[in-house]
Amino acid sequence: MSEKPEDGHSSMIYSFAPIGTIHTPFSTPDGTPIQPSRAAGAKGVVQLDAPFREGLQDLEGFERIWLIYHFHKAPTGQLLVRPFLDTVLRGVFATRSPVRPAPLGMSVVRLLSVQEDCLEVADIDVIDGTPLLDIKPYVPEFDSYPGSKAGWFDESSSQMRHADDRFHR
Amino acid sequence: MSEKPEDGHSSMIYSFAPIGTIHTPFSTPDGTPIQPSRAAGAKGVVQLDAPFREGLQDLEGFERIWLIYHFHKAPTGQLLVRPFLDTVLRGVFATRSPVRPAPLGMSVVRLLSVQEDCLEVADIDVIDGTPLLDIKPYVPEFDSYPGSKAGWFDESSSQMRHADDRFHR
Repeated sequence: MSEKPEDGHSSMIYSFAPIGTIHTPFSTPDGTPIQPSRAAGAKGVVQLDAPFREGLQDLEGFERIWLIYHFHKAPTGQLLVRPFLDTVLRGVFATRSPVRPAPLGMSVVRLLSVQEDCLEVADIDVIDGTPLLDIKPYVPEFDSYPGSKAGWFDESSSQMRHADDRFHR
Repeated sequence: MSEKPEDGHSSMIYSFAPIGTIHTPFSTPDGTPIQPSRAAGAKGVVQLDAPFREGLQDLEGFERIWLIYHFHKAPTGQLLVRPFLDTVLRGVFATRSPVRPAPLGMSVVRLLSVQEDCLEVADIDVIDGTPLLDIKPYVPEFDSYPGSKAGWFDESSSQMRHADDRFHR
């Protein structure tokens, strides 16, 4: 990758190879939990491709992990979206919508077990076959801000737990 | 992007264009805070490229946001790394090291103000000029698990706050 141009990075593209695949019970966007916190324990398997398995060392002992993945079924980038938990159009960067300029997703899941080639996880909220880009440990000191004000989410009374087909019609 | 092959995604590459640039007081990896929680309020500016600015709508009211970015100064992928907060080699997926197969970083920062073309933030822990890929709102229901066990981090007594040059020699 070359140096950034004076006017920013907009002429550059960053490419990432997946490290594995996330397997879940959810074959279509419609019906997939909208967040791990609303996934009611749904289980999945995070399969690591062979060249990356050594990197799983020391994951045991973490109760939760971040999965960073590609929203591979999402249409590309709108700047205003109607999120699952609301009825009005919102700026995409104020939502967790799968439709976004760089379709990168991140989910905190519970780590049930670490195998040689895969991880068993719970509270999974992604579609089966999702390409995995990274795994990071969940560390409360870095990641947990329980009292943080959350804009329009704090006003939302939606109890919706599963996606519908709004982003895939 | 084509359909995934039977044996996973390993033959595929996912490409993302940046949406902007993160400006901070930290010009080199050596001396940059290792996490927002150890950044002691350091301020930065998240500059959005023109085509993406409309997506900032509704961000006001969020106390914190996630920045997802490219670790543009990190050497590429080792599977075992010596993290800033430890003295032994750890599996990379059990660390928050900038050196990882897909060099994607994520940081929770405090949102100070939303301007038309940029965001003022605090607790920033990235190098000046970092290419920004995505912004997501920090939502405690989705992101905050304060009591989550954190493996070797829970044993670490390191009070280290800033990076050294271990990943850039």
